Amino acid sequence: MKNFFVKDSLVQIGKDVTVYGWVSNLRDHKKIVFIDLRDSTGILQVVGDERFRDLHPEDVVKISGTIKKRPEKLINKKVETGEIELQAKDVEVLSHADTLPFDMGKEDLEVTLPTLLDYRSLTLRHPKVKSIFKVQEALMDGFRKISKSLRCTEVIVPEITITATEGGAEVFGFDYYEHTASLTQSPQLYKQMVIPALERVYLIAHAYRAEPSVTTRHLAESVQMDCEFGFVEFEELLDLLEKVAVETIAHAEKACKKELKEHNVSPVLVGKIPRLTLKEAQEVIKKETGRNVVGEKDLSPEDEVDICKWAEKEKKSDFVTVTHFPTRKRAFYTMPDPKNPELSLSYDILFRGLEIASGSQRVHEYEKLVKTIKDRGMNPDDFEMYLMAFQYGMPPEGGFSFGLERLTKTLLQLPNVREAALFPRDMERVDVRLSKKRKK
Amino acid sequence: MKNFFVKDSLVQIGKDVTVYGWVSNLRDHKKIVFIDLRDSTGILQVVGDERFRDLHPEDVVKISGTIKKRPEKLINKKVETGEIELQAKDVEVLSHADTLPFDMGKEDLEVTLPTLLDYRSLTLRHPKVKSIFKVQEALMDGFRKISKSLRCTEVIVPEITITATEGGAEVFGFDYYEHTASLTQSPQLYKQMVIPALERVYLIAHAYRAEPSVTTRHLAESVQMDCEFGFVEFEELLDLLEKVAVETIAHAEKACKKELKEHNVSPVLVGKIPRLTLKEAQEVIKKETGRNVVGEKDLSPEDEVDICKWAEKEKKSDFVTVTHFPTRKRAFYTMPDPKNPELSLSYDILFRGLEIASGSQRVHEYEKLVKTIKDRGMNPDDFEMYLMAFQYGMPPEGGFSFGLERLTKTLLQLPNVREAALFPRDMERVDVRLSKKRKK
Repeated sequence: MKNFFVKDSLVQIGKDVTVYGWVSNLRDHKKIVFIDLRDSTGILQVVGDERFRDLHPEDVVKISGTIKKRPEKLINKKVETGEIELQAKDVEVLSHADTLPFDMGKEDLEVTLPTLLDYRSLTLRHPKVKSIFKVQEALMDGFRKISKSLRCTEVIVPEITITATEGGAEVFGFDYYEHTASLTQSPQLYKQMVIPALERVYLIAHAYRAEPSVTTRHLAESVQMDCEFGFVEFEELLDLLEKVAVETIAHAEKACKKELKEHNVSPVLVGKIPRLTLKEAQEVIKKETGRNVVGEKDLSPEDEVDICKWAEKEKKSDFVTVTHFPTRKRAFYTMPDPKNPELSLSYDILFRGLEIASGSQRVHEYEKLVKTIKDRGMNPDDFEMYLMAFQYGMPPEGGFSFGLERLTKTLLQLPNVREAALFPRDMERVDVRLSKKRKK
Repeated sequence: MKNFFVKDSLVQIGKDVTVYGWVSNLRDHKKIVFIDLRDSTGILQVVGDERFRDLHPEDVVKISGTIKKRPEKLINKKVETGEIELQAKDVEVLSHADTLPFDMGKEDLEVTLPTLLDYRSLTLRHPKVKSIFKVQEALMDGFRKISKSLRCTEVIVPEITITATEGGAEVFGFDYYEHTASLTQSPQLYKQMVIPALERVYLIAHAYRAEPSVTTRHLAESVQMDCEFGFVEFEELLDLLEKVAVETIAHAEKACKKELKEHNVSPVLVGKIPRLTLKEAQEVIKKETGRNVVGEKDLSPEDEVDICKWAEKEKKSDFVTVTHFPTRKRAFYTMPDPKNPELSLSYDILFRGLEIASGSQRVHEYEKLVKTIKDRGMNPDDFEMYLMAFQYGMPPEGGFSFGLERLTKTLLQLPNVREAALFPRDMERVDVRLSKKRKK
């Protein structure tokens, strides 16, 4: 079994080692051949003889040799292993690769988005593409760590549901043993239902939206990172939201220094996070940009960018919290503000120009919840199991939900959220382009 | 915000505290009322006055008072907080509960499986039900911990897929933007596809099976915990499988002492795990029980129980690894044994009478894989993105997959796998019983 990785070579100067990996680049100088050997941890320069001339990009190889310091003038400060190289003795090809459709050896991949996705099983190997998913892993780890420290229990909730409970956005419905079921739009209702058992929970779950939209920020299948807390009030929820946002990103910053540097991500500014109501945010935007958006029911993508610019400039914060969105614009379980029921005890947190999480204090009283469901034209019978949790004693509670791909996109400033999913699903694609497939 | 939990009271004797939770039991002695106050961390005896007579089971309450040592004769050694009680000063009802459909205050819930699930939003609160999900969380934590220590990167893979790629078992299909998609039966193909990028990966993912079966071990929606490793050979995979199985369970044992005790789980026996081929296992069963199963293509549930009994008795091991299942009985990506291609480099690991994980060395050569797909009557065009990963250089690789609910069921010796899912999905139920719903 492979027990030596490229990264390990940094502390093995003078040692004989065996490295397994992929041929990333090949520079043929006739008697001497230079290979960039890639594995999951980095790239190592290999100096080989004529036998290496027959290798091809992406061939899987096993190379034995000695780790040496490079001559001073050949040091490459841009790479982690730029001061060393492997003087090869033996090479064995474990698996041959077909001729590549494009050059994978450049520092930037430089392909269009369709090509990036059409060849996903190949392009994921590129160090800069792969690093997106190391950062994504760190965001999940960071989220779990802070959630656990807040005494949340991790739960698994179902993704098959019996009715489109959130209304509004379209759902994927299907035959389920002679009944109609659908893919869940959100783990929301289930995380609330377990509060009376576990009090504080977190989850990482898939959510499905059949919206016929092709924007840079929507996926048909996406991943949410959610928390829900019993026995909390609104102001405490804002503290929790900000704490989880900041700590999740801080963990990724710390764990993925190399990857964030590759993507030219500047250090995250965390000062005191400004908290504004939607109205206050709109007034700031008006004052800063001249665009009058006061009275709009939500922030537009442009508004999100503008309010974040203001927070960065004026408050030295990459985060902004916006509260009190109109009650009618939020989901039925959102608690109206007792001081002004037209507005709700809801919040979004924005990070570097994009909303990355959303949430609210919830309606926790059974009768009020039933009334709200009816008022919105829905049938309480469709919410039997959900309402049962409230019928038998639900404490004041609330929570929030982060979009994992969005968070990854924003932190790495990727142009499109599809780049932040290993195999993105949208209107046009399920692995391969749908246009290549026969319609049903 | 609640910042004091029942569990914390153990070290607060003599202190004034405020506790939030649910009324679990009420014993009315007229002038003195005893309450069992439950929160997510335990149960605390509260001594209240006449004001407490109006409380009902599952009311959500806020109680202030003083933590005291109980008189010697009132100590209850069966509960963690059995030596203390809360002398109440004030009580406030935060949320009222309806009259319960059954008694929730008993040490065992004593309801039938249909009732347990019909009232899931209520029954999850029972300490012994809730504890199942603390153990489940610990199994996930243990799995992540050992996987990370084996240098696996966590990945998120999609659950919408374009074709039923594993063949055989039935799938849930649905309309996807004018095409037909389906819910994935397994994250298998995707974890293989990322090996050339990340080399070693793990994931916790949902899997969907539309099998029309109602057994004690099947769910329509279940959760898998998977690992996949590049640059490994068969014997190493067996080592990895056993290591992950043992460490995952050991973590839960350590983290959930109280919960395992509640379920009367005896300490797990981990000696040297016996490794048998299917044929050897069948011969052991014949010798031990007289049942001649030699030559059968797989182990039956009865066989699994019998071989585990033998391993426990003869090898002092709660685990058994069984290898070399017939190639035709395993999925197409399973590598045939070069010494005898009728048998495959596949394996199951059994724990206390149940198969908890399954896996294999994979076919990693592109041409062989294409041939296998064709030989099984499938179309390689349906596997375009999968095959691409092999076309451009795949190392020898393999992995395995644990069923999270099965593992939970077996460890806790639950009679039915449905008890190991918060909200189980099967032929008969999506939260509520399907028979209550109109057919489509």
